[in-house]
Amino acid sequence: MDENFLLKTETARYLFNLSKNEPIYDYHCHLSPALIAQNKQFEDLGEIWLGTDHYKWRMMRAMGFDEYYITGSACSYEKFLTWAKTVENLIGNPLYHWSHLELQRYFDIFEPLTEKSAPLIWEKANALLKTHELSIKGIFEKFNVHTVGTTDDPADSLEHHRAIAEGKAAIGKISTNVLPSFRPDRAININVQRHRHGNNSFKDYINILSEVSGIKIKTTDDILLALEKRLNFFIENGCRTSDHALEYVPFNLMSNGKIDKIFKNVMKDKYVSKEETDAYKTKILCGLAKLYSDRGIVMQLHLGASRNVNSRMFKSIGADTGYDFVSDQLMSTNLGSLLNKMESSGTKPSLPKTILYTLNPKDYYPLVTIMGGFQDNNTKGKMQLGTAWWFCDNKDGMEEQIRILANNGVLPLFIGMLTDSRSFLSYPRHEYFRRILCNIIGKWVENGEYPRDMEKLEKIIKDISFGNAKKYFE
Amino acid sequence: MDENFLLKTETARYLFNLSKNEPIYDYHCHLSPALIAQNKQFEDLGEIWLGTDHYKWRMMRAMGFDEYYITGSACSYEKFLTWAKTVENLIGNPLYHWSHLELQRYFDIFEPLTEKSAPLIWEKANALLKTHELSIKGIFEKFNVHTVGTTDDPADSLEHHRAIAEGKAAIGKISTNVLPSFRPDRAININVQRHRHGNNSFKDYINILSEVSGIKIKTTDDILLALEKRLNFFIENGCRTSDHALEYVPFNLMSNGKIDKIFKNVMKDKYVSKEETDAYKTKILCGLAKLYSDRGIVMQLHLGASRNVNSRMFKSIGADTGYDFVSDQLMSTNLGSLLNKMESSGTKPSLPKTILYTLNPKDYYPLVTIMGGFQDNNTKGKMQLGTAWWFCDNKDGMEEQIRILANNGVLPLFIGMLTDSRSFLSYPRHEYFRRILCNIIGKWVENGEYPRDMEKLEKIIKDISFGNAKKYFE
Amino acid sequence: MDENFLLKTETARYLFNLSKNEPIYDYHCHLSPALIAQNKQFEDLGEIWLGTDHYKWRMMRAMGFDEYYITGSACSYEKFLTWAKTVENLIGNPLYHWSHLELQRYFDIFEPLTEKSAPLIWEKANALLKTHELSIKGIFEKFNVHTVGTTDDPADSLEHHRAIAEGKAAIGKISTNVLPSFRPDRAININVQRHRHGNNSFKDYINILSEVSGIKIKTTDDILLALEKRLNFFIENGCRTSDHALEYVPFNLMSNGKIDKIFKNVMKDKYVSKEETDAYKTKILCGLAKLYSDRGIVMQLHLGASRNVNSRMFKSIGADTGYDFVSDQLMSTNLGSLLNKMESSGTKPSLPKTILYTLNPKDYYPLVTIMGGFQDNNTKGKMQLGTAWWFCDNKDGMEEQIRILANNGVLPLFIGMLTDSRSFLSYPRHEYFRRILCNIIGKWVENGEYPRDMEKLEKIIKDISFGNAKKYFE
Repeated sequence: MDENFLLKTETARYLFNLSKNEPIYDYHCHLSPALIAQNKQFEDLGEIWLGTDHYKWRMMRAMGFDEYYITGSACSYEKFLTWAKTVENLIGNPLYHWSHLELQRYFDIFEPLTEKSAPLIWEKANALLKTHELSIKGIFEKFNVHTVGTTDDPADSLEHHRAIAEGKAAIGKISTNVLPSFRPDRAININVQRHRHGNNSFKDYINILSEVSGIKIKTTDDILLALEKRLNFFIENGCRTSDHALEYVPFNLMSNGKIDKIFKNVMKDKYVSKEETDAYKTKILCGLAKLYSDRGIVMQLHLGASRNVNSRMFKSIGADTGYDFVSDQLMSTNLGSLLNKMESSGTKPSLPKTILYTLNPKDYYPLVTIMGGFQDNNTKGKMQLGTAWWFCDNKDGMEEQIRILANNGVLPLFIGMLTDSRSFLSYPRHEYFRRILCNIIGKWVENGEYPRDMEKLEKIIKDISFGNAKKYFE
Repeated sequence: MDENFLLKTETARYLFNLSKNEPIYDYHCHLSPALIAQNKQFEDLGEIWLGTDHYKWRMMRAMGFDEYYITGSACSYEKFLTWAKTVENLIGNPLYHWSHLELQRYFDIFEPLTEKSAPLIWEKANALLKTHELSIKGIFEKFNVHTVGTTDDPADSLEHHRAIAEGKAAIGKISTNVLPSFRPDRAININVQRHRHGNNSFKDYINILSEVSGIKIKTTDDILLALEKRLNFFIENGCRTSDHALEYVPFNLMSNGKIDKIFKNVMKDKYVSKEETDAYKTKILCGLAKLYSDRGIVMQLHLGASRNVNSRMFKSIGADTGYDFVSDQLMSTNLGSLLNKMESSGTKPSLPKTILYTLNPKDYYPLVTIMGGFQDNNTKGKMQLGTAWWFCDNKDGMEEQIRILANNGVLPLFIGMLTDSRSFLSYPRHEYFRRILCNIIGKWVENGEYPRDMEKLEKIIKDISFGNAKKYFE
Repeated sequence: MDENFLLKTETARYLFNLSKNEPIYDYHCHLSPALIAQNKQFEDLGEIWLGTDHYKWRMMRAMGFDEYYITGSACSYEKFLTWAKTVENLIGNPLYHWSHLELQRYFDIFEPLTEKSAPLIWEKANALLKTHELSIKGIFEKFNVHTVGTTDDPADSLEHHRAIAEGKAAIGKISTNVLPSFRPDRAININVQRHRHGNNSFKDYINILSEVSGIKIKTTDDILLALEKRLNFFIENGCRTSDHALEYVPFNLMSNGKIDKIFKNVMKDKYVSKEETDAYKTKILCGLAKLYSDRGIVMQLHLGASRNVNSRMFKSIGADTGYDFVSDQLMSTNLGSLLNKMESSGTKPSLPKTILYTLNPKDYYPLVTIMGGFQDNNTKGKMQLGTAWWFCDNKDGMEEQIRILANNGVLPLFIGMLTDSRSFLSYPRHEYFRRILCNIIGKWVENGEYPRDMEKLEKIIKDISFGNAKKYFE
């Protein structure tokens, strides 16, 4: 893993050199605004690397290590050591590359991490973590992070975003934009019932939303009104994108009256059917799409994930702990219908700029072609196929996504990479992506599949690395 | 894109040289028989390239160009210029390769098409379009087109095919066979209802079919009788293949009496269920299969496409305008059952020679193995996996189809490429396919995965390029 | 196909040299214990190669040869000659490589098999088949076969396994372990009805099971009790793994009382619904999982196959004759739920070590991530993604499986290859797998994607070739 890592041709190396200094526009991630605000200085490599990273936890479990060393009460060094014993086995796994790029770029450590090398790496890295350079502010500067898009509930106060924006947070004035994203999943998942989800039910959420928005919610139109108020508030605070994690793609049309009835039944803890659930979801999604479209807000749809499959572990350590999987659900018919409803049913189209992500590579062909059916005659690259996501976010997966997109769309309009990460150590994933992108394009050029027009190629590479995302969200 | 384009090994180059002069047997396309009959001489590159090509239109929309410049009333040069601005961005897209192969082979233009080079290319190409060499007859001769299989409705008079065959059309005597294909979709899609589809409903079609065939259609057996008459008429006029675009694969068995009842209900504009629809479709498909089988007619099944997803654009500019997508529908169970019904239910097998195409690469494994379960002990290569189609018709897609077919079937029996195109400029796609095929085989040979037996390899390459298709359809 | 076959880098060749002498742990196959016990000496190449191999039969049918030469009454030489005419066309097909590796490794024949070379190869091979070296015992020794896992019905007497283990069979004392696998499909497939399957119905099987186990089966708990007795008997005779071929993944929860009612209805030849069938299957599968888990028995799940699609040929020549196909069925939701039920519902987890195989490559992503959600904190590599299976068991398919596994799991824990074969000539498939594995890893190392740590790499290669399987099953 040297400077030519993954760059197999001269052209690839040339192009990567042009792209590597482009800023990072990380438009979707799960970083904590609170930690940013406080300019968190991490204690040690265990905390910053393993505190929240369920990608790593999964591999540690596959290795048969006790949960004590993973999410349990083992000390940070023990956890780090467990990870060292794991990572040395991750041949062919993106975590191998990510981890070592992180050691190289953040800590200037070029030795492979193994059980043997772990103690010295621990010391060297921890010493650096104490410096300003590896405070969050330092990291943002080091990696030239132009924008960070966090993931936030509509009911969120955005206090940290505001403090950061105003330069009043502990982190002080920073040149990185830390922008909220509007993720109203809880207002959509009407099937999250009180008796099964305690205080996290849909019903509870409606009460929260009602309170925060000041809208007395009695009908589904009231929900949309409340969400509109919150969306406006988000936009005032820099929000440029929404985000939806859809368990599946719902599509069912019912009258407003019927949908209100469904809503009321849920609020009374009565049973609602799958069809009814879908009708409610369809209405709210279409209503939100209109709000987004009117305000130039991007709609991100994350599809194909099934979550918390292991209920024993869910009870023990909760959500987002590494028990999710790739679903093989069908989606093309409903997705086509849903987007068409947004596009075609009103007096004017209300389908916003949209990014379609899937966790299942089998969906790339349906998604890239559905996307092609809703491109807009006035917005360059309006519909986007999201970059390879989560379990697909590896070299093979990224190559597949890029190739399918290029074959069925206009690759130079692609808004490119995001980390989707909970970790402040993830920025080298943008480098990883750029290397893979430059390698593919370099190979095409060297094979005579595209002209060696360096000016054009430079523009393509820089646009995908940074420029397109900036334009798309601004 | 020089003479060695896509040919990475010596063996590949050697093999391609052997295949490149083989005739073209384009057994499935959407060329207009009327234009062929009149030996249409195209006005300009805009007309011949952009007049009907929704592949290109999709990319122009992704670029954000106004529909005015795509299917609207802009002049031909404006449309061409819009395409030039688009194509220069199509890195990694088959349209980049196709367009430049077309410029090279038809117009002797070797410069990349860009906004800058567009004006000169426009002039040079248009001048050539005025010559006899680029009349349709000239094109057929230039590309050594042995056979063209058009796509025709059973009710079609085939007047143009007849005129061409008899040498009485404006095009005069030509050595290319222009043969009709029997595509009875409208007789199968019983769910196309009058109130939603105006004069294009199933009911209207039955009236048309009744009139053209002279059969008074009162029962579903009458429909089959009418179709049989038309099929015989098609065969008299050179037809050797049928073609079916199935929205999904239906399979449901009901009694003849019940199916007639369903048909009658549809004719009375009454509601029929999905199950009833499927029972009707199953009967007609099986009935047609028997007719095909008895007459040695090939059955092509095009699966996995969803059409006209964008209803706003459908209302505005109609069908076949670039608003279709790859479906992720399930098909293996019903397809297995349907083919088995044709194969196993009668006193003798009535499954005809069959080509299974899918628009979704996820279906290749099911299709290639289902196909393997219906090979015939007396017909070499009876069941075929259709070449990579439409959105999959790109270098990666063709490689995937060829590899999966080779891994699970007998590649040397493959009937190979077709254009499926509406454009007279598409013949270099056969060259593109042959390059890809020779490159794969060349790599296998150079890697020691198959012997360097040049006589055998020459036969394989030539058979897949032309010989197999000729034998299969004749 | 020389010594460097498929090994494109220096590192790959080095690694393959280390792995090639590792023993073979063929933990899942369909070899006949009776033939092993009698140390069968095969008559000729036709018998040993073509007697039961429906992979080859499919290709011969695609070539259009009459069934007479395939499974019919043609003499062995005619069948062999038909295969020779077929195999010379199998460019890009694993059967080409397998067949020639078999000729090389068993018979020292390095000439390609063609119609022309067939007569001499026939003679040379047949002469060798008469020697002790190519008796079954000889083959086991020649290929260093450590363990063979056959596939056996719970009602089986295991007489041959016992005779072999005790050294009392004709084969005498052998160093290869010939171990039974517990495959209780017939006790699970409650939907196999008497009127359609004659004496092979579920009802018949319950009677057999009752008799063999000595348990009077009146309830579904009785079935589990009977299976438990048989499992214990199997374990006494060396069984270390079970095996399930699931037509689809069932999941439905009902009360014990209801499930017993369903069972009783089936025994009375009454109709049961799909939901009821699934409830029964779910109970039995979960009950078996607990038995396996308590005893350290591995659970193999073979998913995604549809069998006997061609009913005309099924009536004529029966099951396992080459009329099966890859299903595109959905499985992730039910599989997640089923494994979770086993893992999470009891007082302690009762999900055994599990291997998930699929016949459809589209399922690798769902399976590898579901697997990741049930790894165990105390068992290294507890959950396994089964190696590329049947129609996927080819170079491309194995590469795909290895890459997806590496990207989402810990590749060095992979238990690797098995033949799944009915033929005693299949052991070179392990060599084929090892070459492919070493080639992938070699490429990663030479590309700088993993360190050139030869000690570590040797361990990885040897573990995947043999060590992991040995540990996993013992």
